[in-house]
Amino acid sequence: MMMGDDVENGNLGPYLDRPRTFPNMRSKPYTPLIFRILRGINVRVLVILLFLGFGYVFYIGASTSPIIVFVFSVCIVSFLLSIYLTKWVLSKDEGPPEMAQISEAIRDGAEGFFKTQYGTISKMAVLLALVILSIYLFRNTTPQQESSGLGRATSACITVAAFLLGALCSGVAGYVGMWVSVRANVRVSSAARRSAREALQIAVRAGGFSALVVVGMAVIGIAILYATFYVWLGVDSPGSMKVTDLPLLLVGYGFGASFVALFAQLGGGIYTKAADVGADLVGKVEQGIPEDDPRNPAVIADLVGDNVGDCAARGADLFESIAAEIISAMILGGTMAQHCKIEDPSGFILFPLVVHSFDLVVSSIGILSIRGTRDSNVKVPLEDPMTILQKGYSVTIILAVLTFFGSTRWLLYTEQAPSAWLNFSLCGLVGIITAYVFVWITKYYTDYKHEPVRTLALSSSTGHGTNIIAGVSLGLESTAIPVLVISVSIISAFWLGHTSGLVDETGSPTGGLFGTAVATMGMLSTAAYILTMDMFGPIADNAGGIVEMSQQPESVREITDVLDAVGNTTKATTKGFAIGSAALASFLLFSAYMDEVSSFAREPFKQVDIAIPEVFIGGLLGSMLIFLFSAWACAAVGRTAQEVVKEVRRQFIERPGIMDYKEKPDYGRCVAIVASASLREMIKPGALAIVSPIVVGFLFRVLGHYTGHPLLGAKVVAALLMFATVSGILMALFLNTAGGAWDNAKKFIETGALGGKGSESHKAAITGDTVGDPFKDTAGPSLHVLIKMLATITLVMAPVFL
Amino acid sequence: MMMGDDVENGNLGPYLDRPRTFPNMRSKPYTPLIFRILRGINVRVLVILLFLGFGYVFYIGASTSPIIVFVFSVCIVSFLLSIYLTKWVLSKDEGPPEMAQISEAIRDGAEGFFKTQYGTISKMAVLLALVILSIYLFRNTTPQQESSGLGRATSACITVAAFLLGALCSGVAGYVGMWVSVRANVRVSSAARRSAREALQIAVRAGGFSALVVVGMAVIGIAILYATFYVWLGVDSPGSMKVTDLPLLLVGYGFGASFVALFAQLGGGIYTKAADVGADLVGKVEQGIPEDDPRNPAVIADLVGDNVGDCAARGADLFESIAAEIISAMILGGTMAQHCKIEDPSGFILFPLVVHSFDLVVSSIGILSIRGTRDSNVKVPLEDPMTILQKGYSVTIILAVLTFFGSTRWLLYTEQAPSAWLNFSLCGLVGIITAYVFVWITKYYTDYKHEPVRTLALSSSTGHGTNIIAGVSLGLESTAIPVLVISVSIISAFWLGHTSGLVDETGSPTGGLFGTAVATMGMLSTAAYILTMDMFGPIADNAGGIVEMSQQPESVREITDVLDAVGNTTKATTKGFAIGSAALASFLLFSAYMDEVSSFAREPFKQVDIAIPEVFIGGLLGSMLIFLFSAWACAAVGRTAQEVVKEVRRQFIERPGIMDYKEKPDYGRCVAIVASASLREMIKPGALAIVSPIVVGFLFRVLGHYTGHPLLGAKVVAALLMFATVSGILMALFLNTAGGAWDNAKKFIETGALGGKGSESHKAAITGDTVGDPFKDTAGPSLHVLIKMLATITLVMAPVFL
Repeated sequence: MMMGDDVENGNLGPYLDRPRTFPNMRSKPYTPLIFRILRGINVRVLVILLFLGFGYVFYIGASTSPIIVFVFSVCIVSFLLSIYLTKWVLSKDEGPPEMAQISEAIRDGAEGFFKTQYGTISKMAVLLALVILSIYLFRNTTPQQESSGLGRATSACITVAAFLLGALCSGVAGYVGMWVSVRANVRVSSAARRSAREALQIAVRAGGFSALVVVGMAVIGIAILYATFYVWLGVDSPGSMKVTDLPLLLVGYGFGASFVALFAQLGGGIYTKAADVGADLVGKVEQGIPEDDPRNPAVIADLVGDNVGDCAARGADLFESIAAEIISAMILGGTMAQHCKIEDPSGFILFPLVVHSFDLVVSSIGILSIRGTRDSNVKVPLEDPMTILQKGYSVTIILAVLTFFGSTRWLLYTEQAPSAWLNFSLCGLVGIITAYVFVWITKYYTDYKHEPVRTLALSSSTGHGTNIIAGVSLGLESTAIPVLVISVSIISAFWLGHTSGLVDETGSPTGGLFGTAVATMGMLSTAAYILTMDMFGPIADNAGGIVEMSQQPESVREITDVLDAVGNTTKATTKGFAIGSAALASFLLFSAYMDEVSSFAREPFKQVDIAIPEVFIGGLLGSMLIFLFSAWACAAVGRTAQEVVKEVRRQFIERPGIMDYKEKPDYGRCVAIVASASLREMIKPGALAIVSPIVVGFLFRVLGHYTGHPLLGAKVVAALLMFATVSGILMALFLNTAGGAWDNAKKFIETGALGGKGSESHKAAITGDTVGDPFKDTAGPSLHVLIKMLATITLVMAPVFL
Repeated sequence: MMMGDDVENGNLGPYLDRPRTFPNMRSKPYTPLIFRILRGINVRVLVILLFLGFGYVFYIGASTSPIIVFVFSVCIVSFLLSIYLTKWVLSKDEGPPEMAQISEAIRDGAEGFFKTQYGTISKMAVLLALVILSIYLFRNTTPQQESSGLGRATSACITVAAFLLGALCSGVAGYVGMWVSVRANVRVSSAARRSAREALQIAVRAGGFSALVVVGMAVIGIAILYATFYVWLGVDSPGSMKVTDLPLLLVGYGFGASFVALFAQLGGGIYTKAADVGADLVGKVEQGIPEDDPRNPAVIADLVGDNVGDCAARGADLFESIAAEIISAMILGGTMAQHCKIEDPSGFILFPLVVHSFDLVVSSIGILSIRGTRDSNVKVPLEDPMTILQKGYSVTIILAVLTFFGSTRWLLYTEQAPSAWLNFSLCGLVGIITAYVFVWITKYYTDYKHEPVRTLALSSSTGHGTNIIAGVSLGLESTAIPVLVISVSIISAFWLGHTSGLVDETGSPTGGLFGTAVATMGMLSTAAYILTMDMFGPIADNAGGIVEMSQQPESVREITDVLDAVGNTTKATTKGFAIGSAALASFLLFSAYMDEVSSFAREPFKQVDIAIPEVFIGGLLGSMLIFLFSAWACAAVGRTAQEVVKEVRRQFIERPGIMDYKEKPDYGRCVAIVASASLREMIKPGALAIVSPIVVGFLFRVLGHYTGHPLLGAKVVAALLMFATVSGILMALFLNTAGGAWDNAKKFIETGALGGKGSESHKAAITGDTVGDPFKDTAGPSLHVLIKMLATITLVMAPVFL
């Protein structure tokens, strides 16, 4: 019905006739093997291979524990559901050819970048795997390992295999996120021409698909590794390894996942924000054309960025969060079960896998509860999409609480402490409440319905300078309440666990740390739904861009604008959620690290005493690492954005016809510039994060050796880790909130407040938004990953410090 | 010779005829008693009183130790020298009446604000003194105190008296700084009409006067307290207190000093930058008039701000640094001497006082080495003032190294470890080198001769947004090298001390911490000269303002511009120095805190184990405190600046004649707005800093009591302190460097680079400068003070946590 009105401007014609050319992306001869294989296989062959895999998986699962079988079954059902969701999304139409063409340009850009980026990452991963292998071939073994006959070579192979599998799965998680979003975006745009509700549903289901795959893969990956090692090493048979030591073998998986996630987030984050900032600075500020205007040469790069930065990177990020959290909780559960001499420890060890299996179930129900309207009447006024998403979230969270209580009763009941399971379910409740409160706080500080963003907007009216000062202050201030909340939840979960009645040999209570672990699981018990809402954002954003670029009528733009605004809110709130869970998870990973060090060093390692000068300095270096990493992440965006600005300015000067739609801008050049710059720029901060804990640990190990301090290296690294975590949490909160608030202050002014669009206040607000971009979408999310990566790297690299 | 050309514009006449009116400042009925007394006393009476005082002082000094007599003598000679310097400065002419009138307006504003501000501060100080008194009346006493018969009441009185004396001296230090700068500024302006060299000399000597007073007062204050307590309590006589316990009684002095310094820095910092930002945003950006233009209604407020913010606050800040460092080094020296059973511990205890006495001597020589040219030929081309100041610094530092070696040999030689003094002098050398390196790093990152600021300036050419991103990244990045330097110096000083040969009863080496203490003293061993260079900055800045406002010819402006630029550099470098010494001093204060807690708790307190959840949370809260404090400090400036912007805009609209010099702006209103706003705004961050460690310590003490963790409160506070110090150092480095770099990037563009003044790059650079103002002159310096205030408050308030 609207096809006739689609092209408002006749001059647009030539844009569409010319074949899309992104030679720089296309001519890249290198494609990572794994993608060639994956893309080359016929779907049916894949299905058969999958079934064979399933057979193996169920065999080893059945040989291990019925719990593992349950986990496998749930994951497989979720994968089937995700296939249904993706089929449903792909069955939707791609709209008129101009939409499809824009979408294809975005897809090419995104896939091209993805391939190159993951090519680089996989090379680095292989290199690191070799390093790990050589370290492990020379490391000491634990007494437990020796008694179970686990040699150095086996231990090295296990760690390296786990690392590579983690890296691979993390890469696939990122790929899946991007794969679906570059396909869903145009379908959402097209559906927006018919019905807002349908557009919303497509975006949610596309997000749901990748969320289910990401969470399911994290769970099944760990379950398969666990079951394989269990069967292979003959765990729990006499003279073999004990089941409580098994989780320590999985740390490589977590490190692999966070290694890939770190580079994915850095590269993607630099890409998306450099393109965005560059496009805005020339387009919006200098030329005064709207966002996503087809005349802006950087617009395609900006839209590509949403996919590689937000979708792919966030997929890898959440995959890594869940993997790290499951593994650390398994380690702590195992240690505790061993100390308490619980008859069957597998319940405590496998508990996190079950929680996340239920997460898949309840989130699927939540996702499916968001339905399109039955009648196809286009003009039905759209219910606020946020309300719809919130309804789905309420369904999910209620079910999550119920299943959480059920699974604690099922797995954590022990006759030794009959009421312990109840304490632990309360820990879970603490986690769930913490998640809720975090989301609420983030909203308070970043939503323009509330005081802080309005004050920020007001400060724009006195100029660029006061806007930035107010935004920085707002961001710094916003760290206070989340820190208080985290403090209260760590202490209360710890005390709930401590008083659960579980005692070790000497009769002292030991459940405290496991209590915080359960709280973390509670916080992540709706992770799949949260990830769905998060993925919804960039898909809606992209759909809006396609609608804008293909010059759709105002009514269609309104629909995608509403979806886009909701997407911004969900993106901001999930960041609050991500940092909260990262804070809790890191706290677990410390403990896992200390457990590991004491088992390898064969002496107790219970204290990190920062009154020792070297240990204090470790802390100083850890905090500094966070500052330096953030600096390099932001600077990378700034530098790349400057390149984009220069290129866009050059195009506007050399092709004066662009502004009148008479000449077509060269989108490809901007895509190529951003892609190669972000690949270059992601190396420095990434390498810093990986190399510094290793170097610091090694140097202080040597210093400790010569000055007669055993374990000095391990202690200094522990302090580095803890200070980095604390500073990282604060810095990430600051960066995310300041960025989100600036973004929404600008949006608030764009609603007409304080002079509205084009006023001096608006210009000041755009400056704030520009500054906030690398804060909230590059440095901030990279810090989430960094915190957990540091924790997993110290776990894997511990032999270097000992 | 230039008098005829002075007034370029005939319209300026009416400005000067009208009487200055600052009714809001003048009508303030309240004047703090101490200032009324001080200002009411006839100079001769004062001199007689001083001589009586000296008599007492030498009497108690002679009864204590010859070292104290030496310290007294040096301080008194320095005071005499400072009187000579101030007489010399005041003997210079005040220039033509228009200059004098502007200067009087500045003086009125500054003195009015100072009185009101210190009125508020002194009320708070009295309140806090009552709180301390009541706490100490209920506190436990140490076994040592009991054995020496030191009762609760005596101990309470001593602490409160020391607190009040510290607060008073800190206030006087601030007052002296401001007093001389509001008198020297116009004399520098006037001298600039004759000779650049003379102007430089006046500014240096005025700065030197207050530097000598500040350092001298810190030293003599502690020496008097020490000697008084020594005589009063009959120390070292049988059954009395031991001399090694005496320094612990002085902590109140340090806390009083840092308490006043914190509010002085906050209030002054908010004042100066709110006025500056407000003036720049309307004047430079909107109206396009130059800095310090008489048409800008906020210009007097801006000039007043330099005096109350930079001079008064920095005086109090450095006073507090030196006091805190001396006291903590004395405590550590005493503890070590006791452990090592050194026959005469007074050398170790009094060492810091001697180091600072020599500081006074060598800095005086350095200050006096900067001389005016003999011939009064005006047209002699000015040598780069930076070179002249550097020459003086070189003289000072060479003498400082020599005297440092001398004093270690004199006081730290002990037969127990004959080569210990050499190790300690090397520690001092480490400190001096650290100071040098810090100054160099700050220069590298903030001077436009080097890469970073040039890159920052370049980023202005792509807009406001990229300029801010680049500045933030630069600031965050600049934390790395200083942290590495601090780490290396702490470790090497610690190991030099550790291997000095001093051993305790059990034969284990104990000199490590004292080694870092000596390094800190080395770093501060040229403090008076550094403070002189620092004070030089705002005086030159003010002189430039007066020259600009009184419309002097271009040649005069050029001279003051050069001096102003040099002042900016010295200000920036002394900030690097201040944060470096704060980092080292805090490390000492931790140890002093732990010593104190163990002596009051009567059990060893050697570890701060952050693997305990509550202790970790203490750390999290400590880091958060830094973020929140910085947020509130920056926000205060932002809010006040917005008020100024509105007022200035209102005046430009309501009095359109201002721009043509036909109407006089109402300077008084801006002064009044800024003054009352900064008094209001300084309370919130200041109260946060004081209340939070007390509340956290008390809460966790209660929690520890109910959960069976003794000393939990003290441990949590220790973690809070250490994490706050680490985050505070990093945050202060970030804020100072980013601010300085933005300032100089703007200056670089103003030299004509990248389009020069008025270009779009320049506008973007001004935005950066505006953002940097509260960073580098409010939040950053307040953090220096905060770090040390936290350490002293925990020392004094320790009974609350136990």
